[in-house]
Amino acid sequence: MEITFELGYALDTFYFLICGALVMWMAAGFAMLEAGLVRAKNTTEILTKNISLFAIACTMYMVCGYSIMYGGADFSWFLSGIMGDGATGITDEPATYAPSADFFFQVVFVATAMSIVSGAVAERMKLWAFLAFAVVMTGFIYPMEGAWTWGGEAVFGMYVLGDNGFSDFAGSGIVHMAGASAALAGVLILGARKGKYTADGKINAIPGANLPMATLGTFILWMGWFGFNGGSVLATATVESANSVAVVFMNTNAAAAGGTIAALLLARLMFGKADLTMALNGALAGLVAITAEPSTPTPLQATLFGAAGGLLVVFSIVALDKLKIDDPVGAISVHGTVGLLGLLLVPLTNEGSSFGGQLLGAVTIFVWVFVVSLIVWLIIKAIMGIRVTEEEEFDGVDVSECGLEAYPDFTGSRK
Amino acid sequence: MEITFELGYALDTFYFLICGALVMWMAAGFAMLEAGLVRAKNTTEILTKNISLFAIACTMYMVCGYSIMYGGADFSWFLSGIMGDGATGITDEPATYAPSADFFFQVVFVATAMSIVSGAVAERMKLWAFLAFAVVMTGFIYPMEGAWTWGGEAVFGMYVLGDNGFSDFAGSGIVHMAGASAALAGVLILGARKGKYTADGKINAIPGANLPMATLGTFILWMGWFGFNGGSVLATATVESANSVAVVFMNTNAAAAGGTIAALLLARLMFGKADLTMALNGALAGLVAITAEPSTPTPLQATLFGAAGGLLVVFSIVALDKLKIDDPVGAISVHGTVGLLGLLLVPLTNEGSSFGGQLLGAVTIFVWVFVVSLIVWLIIKAIMGIRVTEEEEFDGVDVSECGLEAYPDFTGSRK
Amino acid sequence: MEITFELGYALDTFYFLICGALVMWMAAGFAMLEAGLVRAKNTTEILTKNISLFAIACTMYMVCGYSIMYGGADFSWFLSGIMGDGATGITDEPATYAPSADFFFQVVFVATAMSIVSGAVAERMKLWAFLAFAVVMTGFIYPMEGAWTWGGEAVFGMYVLGDNGFSDFAGSGIVHMAGASAALAGVLILGARKGKYTADGKINAIPGANLPMATLGTFILWMGWFGFNGGSVLATATVESANSVAVVFMNTNAAAAGGTIAALLLARLMFGKADLTMALNGALAGLVAITAEPSTPTPLQATLFGAAGGLLVVFSIVALDKLKIDDPVGAISVHGTVGLLGLLLVPLTNEGSSFGGQLLGAVTIFVWVFVVSLIVWLIIKAIMGIRVTEEEEFDGVDVSECGLEAYPDFTGSRK
Repeated sequence: MEITFELGYALDTFYFLICGALVMWMAAGFAMLEAGLVRAKNTTEILTKNISLFAIACTMYMVCGYSIMYGGADFSWFLSGIMGDGATGITDEPATYAPSADFFFQVVFVATAMSIVSGAVAERMKLWAFLAFAVVMTGFIYPMEGAWTWGGEAVFGMYVLGDNGFSDFAGSGIVHMAGASAALAGVLILGARKGKYTADGKINAIPGANLPMATLGTFILWMGWFGFNGGSVLATATVESANSVAVVFMNTNAAAAGGTIAALLLARLMFGKADLTMALNGALAGLVAITAEPSTPTPLQATLFGAAGGLLVVFSIVALDKLKIDDPVGAISVHGTVGLLGLLLVPLTNEGSSFGGQLLGAVTIFVWVFVVSLIVWLIIKAIMGIRVTEEEEFDGVDVSECGLEAYPDFTGSRK
Repeated sequence: MEITFELGYALDTFYFLICGALVMWMAAGFAMLEAGLVRAKNTTEILTKNISLFAIACTMYMVCGYSIMYGGADFSWFLSGIMGDGATGITDEPATYAPSADFFFQVVFVATAMSIVSGAVAERMKLWAFLAFAVVMTGFIYPMEGAWTWGGEAVFGMYVLGDNGFSDFAGSGIVHMAGASAALAGVLILGARKGKYTADGKINAIPGANLPMATLGTFILWMGWFGFNGGSVLATATVESANSVAVVFMNTNAAAAGGTIAALLLARLMFGKADLTMALNGALAGLVAITAEPSTPTPLQATLFGAAGGLLVVFSIVALDKLKIDDPVGAISVHGTVGLLGLLLVPLTNEGSSFGGQLLGAVTIFVWVFVVSLIVWLIIKAIMGIRVTEEEEFDGVDVSECGLEAYPDFTGSRK
Repeated sequence: MEITFELGYALDTFYFLICGALVMWMAAGFAMLEAGLVRAKNTTEILTKNISLFAIACTMYMVCGYSIMYGGADFSWFLSGIMGDGATGITDEPATYAPSADFFFQVVFVATAMSIVSGAVAERMKLWAFLAFAVVMTGFIYPMEGAWTWGGEAVFGMYVLGDNGFSDFAGSGIVHMAGASAALAGVLILGARKGKYTADGKINAIPGANLPMATLGTFILWMGWFGFNGGSVLATATVESANSVAVVFMNTNAAAAGGTIAALLLARLMFGKADLTMALNGALAGLVAITAEPSTPTPLQATLFGAAGGLLVVFSIVALDKLKIDDPVGAISVHGTVGLLGLLLVPLTNEGSSFGGQLLGAVTIFVWVFVVSLIVWLIIKAIMGIRVTEEEEFDGVDVSECGLEAYPDFTGSRK
């Protein structure tokens, strides 16, 4: 082989691997964000959920998800199991980067989609019910809609969304809104936490136990998002692709900044205080908003798109609370409502997309993920139940599900 | 274009982006360090400050800072707003890496300078006064001195320091001492925390609430510094530049190690105990000390330079306390005193610099940043006030400024 | 030089540096993991140990360790002290990447080996005794066995293990089992914590104070391991090496996932609950198990090897407790027992190794490190003592060794 081909192959591979490692790091971000935003008595359980769902996602995507999403539901990749040695990967196209780097980059995306669910159903769902859902979500639900979009495969007779003017660069819809749709289905079946909404219509704030952890989680996600969006250019070894990756990094950062500022100011106006949790959600909303198209806006546009996400997320969180949809960490608003916004912003700067195509994509993803998730949650509920008992909820799920307190020296039981 | 040119362009761009992501990660480091070193009741506020200042820095540098620093105060870059597509960036030179990667790498440095301020003024400054200062610091004060140094631009009639034998590789002076100078101005106007210095001349230690967080912050900064110093070589796609980047990584690590050990041993001698906060500040001091020139020392020299920083920071922290300059996290000592040391160490190994030039640079940066900051702090004080009330300070600024406790389950108010 | 040579040199150098930075990041992972798993009253001390041991490791490896391990105990590298400028490094071979990048990558491995020790001896060892051991371990004990293996040097008359069918890709034995062997020696001399094993044969669980921290530490280690294993390919600038690095990333991730799931399920079966600390140890065990050979298994095999590690670590932790070997964080099981498993798994997929060679290597490393460590611990015990007094242990070593509580606002002493 030409040495210049080898160098380009090596650089693109390394780029995929580093971006993938950054996306893997987002799993830590979700874990810390959610652990910081729940009460102390439910912390061990949400940590257990987060590390377990990541492990399940990686395993299920290997077993079947990757083959469904990119292999036309041909499972020979898993059965043969080898993708090194310069061989072609799951498709027959000659590789311009290592096939296993492609798998590594894709597998961490599945975990992101699943991480979104865990925060929304926190503090009252049975751990094993959640993990059972994770198996189906990461092995089947996400890979199916992934096949119709990024996979470019009409798996199980579906249309390919890309043929219909749909464009979702790094997954505002395919990853984030999908995760939020599964979360919404779970929350609707599960119901609100005890004491969140009182009979007289009052909404009680239930503050998180550890805001430094939640802030750390947000910073981790912000950092990991460079890999999430930056890696989605899918190549970097030419001037054109390198420029694109650089624009994506710049705009991803700008959007997060815009979202933070907008949410901070809006919360100040609405609540009279500098609400940290809204600022954190604003940063994440900015990131979700730019994810569907970070490569075509100018940095100013990216900042404004992020700010739009930051404003929307505050309104969405307030609105969901009024609808008594109890989402302890705001995941449905951050990833769902703003994920939809992200999809709809694409045609403003990307001429290859259309509002019609974006809407079709959004509806397709939402209906597929929400309906199938609803069915799966109901099946799980029928078989094993999905909600802990009232007493377990009152005592905290850490003791009942994990047998371990998260902070035994601080919360009184040991002192 | 030649494919070898393209590969070099792509590698340099990727290198800038990864180094930039590591510097962005330092924002998390400062947030965790400061959140760990303040009291529980002031934690939410410092977290809010940290994520907000990062967002403000990114936005203000885009709006005007970058144009002042590298564009000769020509704001057409912001107005046109696009820097992708292989076009030249803010300057007219043909790019050897993506122009937006340059912006991304530079923008995270501004945030670092501003992060330094937030720790020093912790536990008693009004949040919105701080954020107002952040707007001016990141949009104007830092970019001005940046123009006279790295920018190589005689903006507003100033001399270019590089023409006078001044050399500051990655910013011991331009970033760290600058941040500390702004912090010092703020602290002088703000005054000490209530109870820190008693009328009879006693100095009360006010320990931080969460030392694992502070340690995590230090490790994050240590890691991010590889991007901070390593990226400042500004190229890596040749043998010469690659060697330089590698030496910088090695020496940055060595200096941090030397600083840690020296501060730990000195604190043991002075206080009789292994003082963790001094070891952490020693590590950071080692990093600041090597930042002005990490590419020319041998690893042994780097270790010794770092150790000198580690010793100096302990003496400086003690001395500032005697002067009743109340800096809750030691930021003025770590970044200011040791930043100056870093500048003065450069001529020992870099023949292109002189003590005279370093002194001129140090004085220029300090006078500019300190004086202008003082004026800005005074204006802010006149308009909106900069200090919370005594009662708010006693209760903690989390409640008064943010309306949210950082650890509600542990500090008694919810239990 | 040819520009294509330069580009390959630059890419390989950058790859080493990024992988090295990820391994450095593992130091934060160990610090957080251990800080989360000890009691609140022993947290400051373990943080101090972790940052100090990293600094000592970096310095001692520079002073003598690197020269012993890779320079045939020729210390001219340290004395000359320069390795930049495209010169050859510690060996005379012409470099294909920056010599100082090689040093940087190797130096962070030493710190990993030493980090393993600190958790096992937590909560009762004298801080300065530990640091004294760190000097010997990182400057002499580890470099010696490193010379006989990766160094390929028969230093001090020893055989070279690689000539005898021994293969340890990234250090299941050379780093992890070595660290665990030194830890075991320390624990045997030190004895168990007061109250851990009662006279009537009861084993008391002593839960960790901060499980989010422990989980964060595990995620950091998981991420850093991509650099640990991925960097151990030692090159990435060709199609063949890039494929190998990609396979290593993929398999490292798969093994961690397998270990997590296996340990979670086994703990559920054995204890009836989803034990988070077992899941965390399972993830780490999966990583240790794959480390001796992450480049030849298929991803399914990697998952199963990781799962084997995850099962073994649970049994090992239970068994060590029955033997009254008190290891507060499970480090001896994770890195020692599973490190041995990792070595023995190599011949299943790597034809260049043999069970006999792996056993010889395992025995050589264990005997060398364990026996010499035992002697060093005994000498330290004779000179300065290694265990704190009963009263200091009861009050927590934070106060006696560091003079600082880790969480003063939460644990009652300040409130």
